[in-house]
Amino acid sequence: MRISELSAKSGVAIPTIKYYLRECLLHPGEQTAATRAEYDESHLRRLRLIRALLEVGRLPVASIKKIIEAVEDESLPLHLLLGTAHYALSATVEPEPGEEWQIARDEVDRLIADQGWDVTPAAPARDELAQTIVRMRQLGLPVDLKPYVGIAQKLVSEVEMNTIPFDGPRDAAVEALVLGTVLYGKAFEALRRMAQESESARRLSP
Amino acid sequence: MRISELSAKSGVAIPTIKYYLRECLLHPGEQTAATRAEYDESHLRRLRLIRALLEVGRLPVASIKKIIEAVEDESLPLHLLLGTAHYALSATVEPEPGEEWQIARDEVDRLIADQGWDVTPAAPARDELAQTIVRMRQLGLPVDLKPYVGIAQKLVSEVEMNTIPFDGPRDAAVEALVLGTVLYGKAFEALRRMAQESESARRLSP
Repeated sequence: MRISELSAKSGVAIPTIKYYLRECLLHPGEQTAATRAEYDESHLRRLRLIRALLEVGRLPVASIKKIIEAVEDESLPLHLLLGTAHYALSATVEPEPGEEWQIARDEVDRLIADQGWDVTPAAPARDELAQTIVRMRQLGLPVDLKPYVGIAQKLVSEVEMNTIPFDGPRDAAVEALVLGTVLYGKAFEALRRMAQESESARRLSP
Repeated sequence: MRISELSAKSGVAIPTIKYYLRECLLHPGEQTAATRAEYDESHLRRLRLIRALLEVGRLPVASIKKIIEAVEDESLPLHLLLGTAHYALSATVEPEPGEEWQIARDEVDRLIADQGWDVTPAAPARDELAQTIVRMRQLGLPVDLKPYVGIAQKLVSEVEMNTIPFDGPRDAAVEALVLGTVLYGKAFEALRRMAQESESARRLSP
């Protein structure tokens, strides 16, 4: 298809498509004449991925570039590719000095080991969780994460992972992971708040 | 206790306590001399609540003031008080023009009715969820929220609501709701990401 059709089908404006081509976020089309190139389904899928990373993941272009490079590096195992995309979506949490932090971080590492989870030592979620635990302690809140661990495990293994096409094109798996992590995460948060409201209404009604 | 002790016990600096007193976020102590007042446990609890709303909920002082006014209005039923705190924590989502939005919003309303949830028509989470559904559709993602609804319900009714002291002081219930909504939400999100990483490693390992 021509660039105009690619634009119409993807909903991405032509100047934006040209910008992605210049920045190497989008692979070039097949040159059919000096000023004319043909695009195909792979371009459409890539534009969808870029839009997902930009609009839903709210990632900066530099992070998107790293993910696209990982998608294109066919020698990179899919698991590491998904890790790259996943980590790019995480907030960076700086470890805090002091014993409190170290205790919380040790707890996180123990929890992961107890659970038998296969999570790399560098996963940003380890520090995210440690920081949350430190805040809970500072506010005198009980830190019992067991029920949350069980429910997170159930959500992911019974529902979320089934939506990722592990055997399809690499773009599609990354897109599904990003969309799943961000959008279903938001949907879950909204549902949780409504369940909280409903449940507290129920417990407080006469 | 004197203001210096209140400061030491709460970790809030004396000038900040004085600012809260002036802004009526903190109720006055008992005046024992012209320049001396006595504070008690209720002041400590209130400072903890303010800190939680500020640091964990990241609410602006104007929103905190509204919540404190609701806490102090003893004629307000606890359920409405919790609603006030809960809604203050939500992001405001503007409804979008067009049919897509209306279809999504109708689906949200139907889902809540089907679930038998007691959620006010003005709950911000309704629009939050509608917006997420619109984005999912725009990206061609399947919108099957049933499993998420079930898991959110389970998390809230079996775990979260049991941590709210419905029969204690009003400050304590609000504080538990705010801390629970924000901090346990963050903890759950970090756990979900780690479970995702682990589960995808498992499915992709030879």
